Formats: sequence, structure tokens, C-alpha cells
Amino acid sequence: MTDPHSFNPSRLPSTGGRSDTRLDHYVDSYAQRTHKMTASAVRSLFSVANRPEVVSLAGGMPNIADLPLGKVGNLLDELIQRDGARIMQYGSGQGELQIREQICEVMAEEQIRAHPDDVVITAGSQQGLDLVTRIFCDPDDVVLVEAPSYVGALGTFKSYQTQISHVAMDDQGLDPDALRQVVTSLRDQGRRVKFLYTIPNFNNPAGITQPTERRREILQVAEDLDLLIVEDNPYGLLTIDGEPLPAMRSMETDRVIYLGSFSKTFAPGFRVGWVLAPHAVREKLVLAQESATLCPPVFSQFAISEYLAKHDWRGQIRQYRDMYRERRDAMLQGLTENMPQGTTWTHPTGGFFVWVTLPQGVDSQKMLPRAVTARVAYVPGDAFFADGFGSRHMRLSYCFPTPERIIEGTRRLGEVIADEMRINEVFGITDDHRLHSNPTPGPSPDIS
Amino acid sequence: MTDPHSFNPSRLPSTGGRSDTRLDHYVDSYAQRTHKMTASAVRSLFSVANRPEVVSLAGGMPNIADLPLGKVGNLLDELIQRDGARIMQYGSGQGELQIREQICEVMAEEQIRAHPDDVVITAGSQQGLDLVTRIFCDPDDVVLVEAPSYVGALGTFKSYQTQISHVAMDDQGLDPDALRQVVTSLRDQGRRVKFLYTIPNFNNPAGITQPTERRREILQVAEDLDLLIVEDNPYGLLTIDGEPLPAMRSMETDRVIYLGSFSKTFAPGFRVGWVLAPHAVREKLVLAQESATLCPPVFSQFAISEYLAKHDWRGQIRQYRDMYRERRDAMLQGLTENMPQGTTWTHPTGGFFVWVTLPQGVDSQKMLPRAVTARVAYVPGDAFFADGFGSRHMRLSYCFPTPERIIEGTRRLGEVIADEMRINEVFGITDDHRLHSNPTPGPSPDIS
Repeated sequence: MTDPHSFNPSRLPSTGGRSDTRLDHYVDSYAQRTHKMTASAVRSLFSVANRPEVVSLAGGMPNIADLPLGKVGNLLDELIQRDGARIMQYGSGQGELQIREQICEVMAEEQIRAHPDDVVITAGSQQGLDLVTRIFCDPDDVVLVEAPSYVGALGTFKSYQTQISHVAMDDQGLDPDALRQVVTSLRDQGRRVKFLYTIPNFNNPAGITQPTERRREILQVAEDLDLLIVEDNPYGLLTIDGEPLPAMRSMETDRVIYLGSFSKTFAPGFRVGWVLAPHAVREKLVLAQESATLCPPVFSQFAISEYLAKHDWRGQIRQYRDMYRERRDAMLQGLTENMPQGTTWTHPTGGFFVWVTLPQGVDSQKMLPRAVTARVAYVPGDAFFADGFGSRHMRLSYCFPTPERIIEGTRRLGEVIADEMRINEVFGITDDHRLHSNPTPGPSPDIS
Repeated sequence: MTDPHSFNPSRLPSTGGRSDTRLDHYVDSYAQRTHKMTASAVRSLFSVANRPEVVSLAGGMPNIADLPLGKVGNLLDELIQRDGARIMQYGSGQGELQIREQICEVMAEEQIRAHPDDVVITAGSQQGLDLVTRIFCDPDDVVLVEAPSYVGALGTFKSYQTQISHVAMDDQGLDPDALRQVVTSLRDQGRRVKFLYTIPNFNNPAGITQPTERRREILQVAEDLDLLIVEDNPYGLLTIDGEPLPAMRSMETDRVIYLGSFSKTFAPGFRVGWVLAPHAVREKLVLAQESATLCPPVFSQFAISEYLAKHDWRGQIRQYRDMYRERRDAMLQGLTENMPQGTTWTHPTGGFFVWVTLPQGVDSQKMLPRAVTARVAYVPGDAFFADGFGSRHMRLSYCFPTPERIIEGTRRLGEVIADEMRINEVFGITDDHRLHSNPTPGPSPDIS
């Protein structure tokens, strides 16, 4: 089983896919956009890191081992016997009404009040991103993202030939003043800014959450500048400390397109996510969905609908929270015990990821082969920037391995970093990091 | 349950979606391509035609009532108990190896020899179309299609801002001489022709099949002109008369991209189709798939894989063939008994559709409201042309209703057409059909 959130270092943007163009009869026939598609975005983790002896802190696969498989199997069996000819048939391009109603209940957990008419089902939340970009972005339009931001979103935005501008974060997430500055500056240059893409909860990869007041400030800037916001919230219900915060969409209905997913709160294999959008935008999304797939996976929608109706899904989410809390705690404990001085990291209150800043002179991308040799894997930070920045950072995930493996992973990683630092000391630091254009390029990490 | 193959006349391209732009805050923000998206392509049939008293000869929903639901339910229950944590997890962007191997067996039924490495799984065959267009087509590139061609493909090509050129058909399908002429002429004008999209078996909507020799001729033209072919084959195994013909892909591997689907041979609700492509193209398709959805529906793939492994799927297809033969025969009998003089139609040897040419002066689009009032529905012919041609034609489908209902539908339709002819006789023919630019615009129908 491969992991789409992971990262294949043999396919970096700089060389991605170009090596075999000599053999490609069609190299001159591809669309412009195809040259922007690189495998760095989302690709199975290099095979060696999938070997059982390697502790992978790289992947973003949710841990679904605790799902009640017996019950799910029985539910689907009964559902097929009862209604098979309907749930295996074509469905609505917008998605089935039944699950759109239930999704409104799910979103109510984050204080969103929505009408099922405004929900469009997608083949996973990634397709929501794809369709939103499709309907809004012409080549060279600007999309704003956090610095750093989700690698899969960057890949999609690039594939539509957009320009990606990063907006600085601090320890409360996206910086509203930086946002105002970036938008104003881009518009002064005559650029068309199409939307801000933000992950308010447990940012992937930064592990930082916008407090409620910060969300209001960002919405105020959006209001002042007439800016559309795409709020991506796959992890919102997976809080570890405290209760879910109100979604941006709960505070503002007309300016926010909200992306949701069952991949982390139930299971990703059904590929069911959704977009909640202002009504006129929703119409365009349905047209785009019909053109893309006719209709999103029908059987999957009924399967999840049945699960939501017949199983204590809130209880399942509480169970997930406890399980991820144990892993998050192991990660933080392991980092405290094992990271060499000068290393800092964020303290996530939910979600899957910790963002690590390495000591001066240590390059996460260059170090990766040595880390894998030492049987630990991570995602180098530059994957989460569109502009080559980030090599002093890395993303560590605690979602999948056991707590013991997580601690062992940080121990191995600590040794690899310490080795790098010793090599730098002996041979001199070869600090060739490219500088980032933003004043505050990465999140201000929580020093630990 | 709505039907994505059907057609909503209230949303024709000429007015589609424009009526509410006044209320759309984002009307100036959409991408150029969004203005090309219209609901005509694939949209639920107008609600009135879904009323039980209406005989719908409009839809393209396969009849899956005969599926062994008890067995399918049990198989999936066992599969989940056995392997749930894997089949509900993220999967490969290319699709699971296991089903790609089985797909090679399925394609062998049409004499295709392929390697699972060259197969990419898609969220239904429609997504195959979307991804192929995405990687090949820039705005204003030309895509060639049969005259008429699949409405859903036309919609996708338009949404990528391509120019669509129709190529004439005769009673053996796409005319190779016309193809040569059109390509040469377009290239003389400096246009970039990206590929020919063709449905060799039981063309949707024309119901015409290319004989083996015709396929070779078309491939020869493609070879001479260095033209890529996209072979769409959702119905190939659903032959009614005789055995499946060899696919174009079985005769030529480097110049043909083949689209396959389980929607008609098993069930559409799982949304599993595939693309078989030359190796270099396959690489691009996987990148596009990862950007679009991370990975195609994982659970669906394992579900179908289990069905293929544990059920006599060839026997199921034989059963489908017999069921559709009975319906096709009812349709042809009904047309023979009920169509007014001057009406002609094709004789499909498989698939779902008959293409009807109406008597001079009868306009299928204008007639539709009267037909629905008379409790029969069809798809007007102009849906299958990118250029407004086709209003003297209609597509009738025999896939879903019972044989008795099909015959009753043709009876009602015959009366409506006869009424139209009488009105024309009394008030004079208002023949405002636009003329088509191609010398042989539609298929040469089999006069019956």
C-alpha cells in the first residue's frame, strides 16, 4: 500500500519526469499545463522507506486500524441486499442528497450552518481543490497560500499554471498584516489574485492552528480587500487538546469556500470529500464535476451515509482523538529527548504533523538519504514551498506509527542531525539555502 | 436517482447557466474555461421525464437489475472483514496493481495484449476523458470527433477550451477519407490537431460499429498523418449480434489511447474506468490523476477486483447481452411498426442506442416538449454536435425500460412525429435547420 501524502525524493521538481522525454513520442504534443505537473506533489514514498525496518515519519496516512470492520462489513452487506440496484447505479453530479444532509450535521460540529443544496460531493477533498482551481484560475492568476502549505495543493495550483504567492505565518498561523501587504502589492503590480488557500486547523505541514480571533482578523482583511477564501479543513474534528474551533465558514458565508473530507474522520479509501460554496459558485462546481467524472463515487457515498446513520461516528472520532493524542505526545517527548540543540519544532493541538526547524547549516533534503540509511524517513521542508525555500525545515508525522516507533524514529533522526552538524563543524557549513522573499518565511516555531 | 447520460433541455448551451449571473458575486472571477462549461453535456433528465408514466428513451443508465446482489453483498462483507484497513486506506495514484492485472484479462476479450504498468485507473471512464484532455489540450487545440459524438466528451473538450471538429460517418462508422481531408485542411490552416476521439463499437449516439477493416483504414490514416487516437470503448463487450471485434488498440499500440469502463459490464456506481496508454503518456496521466484526486476510489477498485475474482463475470456479461438483445429487438420492432414514413434509423449490433433521422421539417428539439406531454422522452440530436447541427435527429436508448415499455414508447413517439408532420403540412414547413459544414454530416442511416 502506498501513501499519497508522502514524497518521492527521486522525483523532485528540478528533474521530475524529464529524464525520459527522449523516448516520448508525444513530448511536443502535451498541453502547456502538463509541463507544470511534477511528481513531487503527491507520490508514493520511495520504496526503501516503505521497508518495515524504516520508521516513516513522512506519510500522512490516517491510522484506521481501530475501525469496527465487522460492523462496517455487515452494514454494507445489508445495504447492498436492500438497495444494491440504486447504490451501484449512476448518481447525481452534485452528489446524493442523503449524504449532503448528513454532511451538514458533520459541519455543525464546527458551528457551520449550511444547506445541503450548497454542498458538492467530490472524489476526496483533493478533487475539491482541483475543481475550485479549475473554475477560478486561468494561467498566471495568483493563488495565495501559507508559508509553508500543503504539498498536494501546491501541485494542483501549479498544474493549472497559476502563480503561487506565499504569505508568512506566525505562531497563530497566517499573518493578517502580511496578507494585506501581499495582496496590495500584487494588485499594484496588476496581478489577478483569485483566492487565499488556508488550512486554519493544524496546518499541514506546520501543525499550527489559527485561534478564533485570528480567523476573524483574516476574514476582515478578506472583506476589506474583496478576497475569496478557500478554507481547507480535513483535520478540524481531530482536535487533541480542547474542542473544535468555529470554522471560518461559520463566521462568513459568502466569501468562504469550505473543503471537507471523510478521509481522516472515517477512512480515505472511499474517496469522499465535499465543497461547501456560495450558491452561484456551487452551480459552477457541479458543472465542473459532471465534466470531470459525470458523478462522484456513488457507492462510496451510500456506504459512508450508512456508516453515519448506523454507527456512533462521533464516538469513533473521540477514539481517533485519543489515539492521535498518544502519538502526538510520543512525538513531542521524543523530540525533547533526542533533538540536538538548535533544533526547534511546533506543538500541534490536533491533526497529524509537527514542523521542525533544523540548526543552521543542516539541509533536510540533502540529509534525507542518510536518514533513510539510518532507518528513519521524513518529508523535506521545501516540498511545502512553491519557490524552493524550506530546506532547513522538515515535516514529521505522528499519525501512523506506534508511539514506541515514533520515539525510536526521533532517536534515529536526532543522531542523523547530530552527525550532520559534526560534519559541518569539521568541513565548514556549506550553507547554500536560497533566501525566501517574504519577511517572515516560515512559521515561528515553538522553541522546545 | 438521476441519470448523468440524459439531457436537460432547460439548460441548452445557448442559455445555460447565464440567467443567474446577476446574482453571482464571482461572475468576473471565474476562469475563461468556466464560461465554456454548460449543463447540456451531462445533466439529470428534466424532472417531468422521470415521472413513472413517461417512457424514457433518453437515458443511458445500464440495466443492472440482474446483478446477484446477495452474492456481491457477501463478497464485500468478507472482503472488509479480511482486509478492511487496507482497502479503506489511501492507494496508488495509478490504481491498484491487482485490478490493473485483471483489467488486462478483460481487455484480452477484445484481443488487446497489454501490461498492467500501462493501465491507469480513473473515477469512471469520464475521468479518463478528462485526464487525457487535460494532459494534451491547450485552448484552441483541435479535437476531432465523429458526427455525431458522445455528449459527455463534447462537454469535456469544450471545458478545456478546445475547438471541436466533426468528421463524417457512413454506415461503417467514421469515414477515413473524410478524416484525412479534415486533418489536412486543419493543418493547412495552421491548427494543432491533438487527437481523434472515436467510439468504434456501437457509437453513442449513432449506434454504428466500425468493421475490423474500417478500423485498419482509420489506423492507416492516423499512421500517415502522425495522429493520436483516443479509442473510447465502454460498450465493446456488450455485443448483441456476434462476438466482440478486435479493438483498435489490439492492432496498434503506440498511437492509441484506450478508454475502458466497468460501468456497463458490471455497474457504474463504483466509478471505476481505466486508460491504457503508451508508457510515456501513462506517466503524465498518473501525475494528472494525483493532482486531480490523489488516487482513484480505492474501495471501489478492491470491490470490483473481488467481483472479478469470485464471480463468473463473463457469464454476467452474457446475461447482459441477452437482456439487451431483447430490448434492442423490441426497439427495432417498435420503430418498424410505429414510425411515420420518411423516418429512418440505425440498426445497432450492440450497445444502448439507436439514432433516428426524422422526416424533413421535423425538429427534434422543438418537438421534445410535445413528446414529454405525450409521455415519451428522447435526447434531441443537436446535443451530439458541437456546432448546432443535428436537430433532425434524435437518440433513442433501449437499455433501461422493459421491452413492452420500449414498444409503447415508440408508439407514442410515432404519434407525436405524425402530429408534427400534419402541423407542418397545414402551416407549411418552418425548416430553419442550420446547415452542417461537413459534406456528410450524419451517419448514413439504415433505412427501415
